[in-house]
Amino acid sequence: MSEKRTDISQLGEFGLIDTLTKSFTTHVSSTLKGVGDDAAVISVSETEAMLVSTDMLVEGIHFNLMYTPLMHLGYKSVMVNLSDIYAMNGKPTQITVSIAVSSRFPLEALEELYAGIKKACDLYQVDLVGGDTTSSLSGLVISITAIGVAQKNEIVYRGGAKEFDLLVVSGDLGGAYMGLQLLEREREVFKANPNIQPDLDGHDYLLERQLKPEARKDVISFLKELEVQPTSMIDISDGLASEIFHLCDASKVGCTIYDDRVPIDAKTSMAAIEFNIDPITAALNGGEDYELLFTVKQSDYEKVVSNPHFTVIGHITDKDSGVNLVDKHGSVVALQAQGWNHFE
Amino acid sequence: MSEKRTDISQLGEFGLIDTLTKSFTTHVSSTLKGVGDDAAVISVSETEAMLVSTDMLVEGIHFNLMYTPLMHLGYKSVMVNLSDIYAMNGKPTQITVSIAVSSRFPLEALEELYAGIKKACDLYQVDLVGGDTTSSLSGLVISITAIGVAQKNEIVYRGGAKEFDLLVVSGDLGGAYMGLQLLEREREVFKANPNIQPDLDGHDYLLERQLKPEARKDVISFLKELEVQPTSMIDISDGLASEIFHLCDASKVGCTIYDDRVPIDAKTSMAAIEFNIDPITAALNGGEDYELLFTVKQSDYEKVVSNPHFTVIGHITDKDSGVNLVDKHGSVVALQAQGWNHFE
Repeated sequence: MSEKRTDISQLGEFGLIDTLTKSFTTHVSSTLKGVGDDAAVISVSETEAMLVSTDMLVEGIHFNLMYTPLMHLGYKSVMVNLSDIYAMNGKPTQITVSIAVSSRFPLEALEELYAGIKKACDLYQVDLVGGDTTSSLSGLVISITAIGVAQKNEIVYRGGAKEFDLLVVSGDLGGAYMGLQLLEREREVFKANPNIQPDLDGHDYLLERQLKPEARKDVISFLKELEVQPTSMIDISDGLASEIFHLCDASKVGCTIYDDRVPIDAKTSMAAIEFNIDPITAALNGGEDYELLFTVKQSDYEKVVSNPHFTVIGHITDKDSGVNLVDKHGSVVALQAQGWNHFE
Repeated sequence: MSEKRTDISQLGEFGLIDTLTKSFTTHVSSTLKGVGDDAAVISVSETEAMLVSTDMLVEGIHFNLMYTPLMHLGYKSVMVNLSDIYAMNGKPTQITVSIAVSSRFPLEALEELYAGIKKACDLYQVDLVGGDTTSSLSGLVISITAIGVAQKNEIVYRGGAKEFDLLVVSGDLGGAYMGLQLLEREREVFKANPNIQPDLDGHDYLLERQLKPEARKDVISFLKELEVQPTSMIDISDGLASEIFHLCDASKVGCTIYDDRVPIDAKTSMAAIEFNIDPITAALNGGEDYELLFTVKQSDYEKVVSNPHFTVIGHITDKDSGVNLVDKHGSVVALQAQGWNHFE
């Protein structure tokens, strides 16, 4: 047998999706956008479109049940999906939830998970409209599809950034990653000595960023109130650097961001230093912040900086200039997208 | 600790879904139908609705890679979902595909899987518009969401059957189940002696029913051509008996079906007899036929019987009469819904 075997870990998640889907063609005229943005866009009338996004969370890859309360996991699973709808400047309306679960899970554990899902649905005003429940020979798998609506002329794609646009992020970055480091450290301590109580006091902010993130529904409202239509947008699930690359690739542009402009909470910085991690590394390469990264025209600068949730971190350049980071000393370095490769 | 632990296998799949989702309320006016039918129904205009259905297939539970070619698995995964859209009398338009896969899978294996998905998309004219790809610590998990469209006044729900309506099935039943028995038998033989070649000659029909089923797109066209609007409909994924119970429960009716009217192909009967299984048992309790079960008004009888793909197998009664099977000798027995409980 000389069957060819290519290791999928070489491709990374995005290379893999590209390879697997590149031969697919479009058959239906209502498909306005397929694979390649935060959500698919389906035309439903002259002025309106439906948005569809889906994410799969796998035990042992995306979450560790040793320190993840099931209620938070249910809540977070919904947030991850709603975040993709907001990243299109849309409004999520419905979700479906499928789970594969081993029979070692008692009903009460699943009720906890669904209590978190329900809390998310109630708070974000979305309806659970379907799903599937099946058994699994091993861990828990959660697959959620979010549906949303948007006016066609308000949808924001990844590919709309233009030279001289400003690059903006909501909230602060790196917190979810430092929360994960804290939880992993306590897990190691616990493994070594189960009698030692976990030492997580004073870290509520970071733990919440990791275990119970919020999708930035408010950002969409702020943008509407400010009458700012972003030229491009993406949600920050895999780390700022990786998302900047996606946005620049799709828009066929480069960008320059400034190290000291990247918003990092003091609690994140302090934890990073404690772990011997440069805070900017946590912000650039740590994932799961679920903030929004978007670009606006320069003329929207005053409006954007008037909102304390928004930080201008750089600007869009031409493609040939590449994707660059300017550090505190003014040195320019090409940005590296580490991101996450679940197959490594 | 006196934590309550209820075994989920006691509830069965449908009991579990009911328990987990019963407290959810509706927030969005576009949600016309949530959990509880083949697909959710979302209003998109005065006359049109979008249909959404999702299914998860898990290695070791829904398929065995020892005898399931990956191309067929990809194709079947799409069929399972399109079938749910047809069961609402809708037209599927888009799908999303998420997979969790162990890194032991080479790229070439995933390309086979996606070749099957593409074949299904091309043949059924649906677009792949999104998905997620992640690693898995164990087996392959495939989660597909299908989106479809329908005119609101043409959507057929499970709950519309009325007393005296006729119960109709498309195609023939039990074939997929007998195909599975053949494959399982050969797997046992192979395990006992890997040098023996599998003996599957002459069983193409049954193997295809199991490995590469077709969703009944044609049935929806036939119904339109005949100008028959079913009063209720459901797809037969878990076995005829189980689906009859779902339909009667949702419609708050009973029914009587006739043993000798249930359409069973001669190849299915012969294989069943070879396996010491009563063919009617394979048809009633074997799953995965992906035929459609629907009810029509008595006045549509002539139209329905004019189509060789349709078989009238009984009629709807009042709820108190229960769900009954009349055997060849005229004896009436209460039907048992065995169906599938993946948690057992």
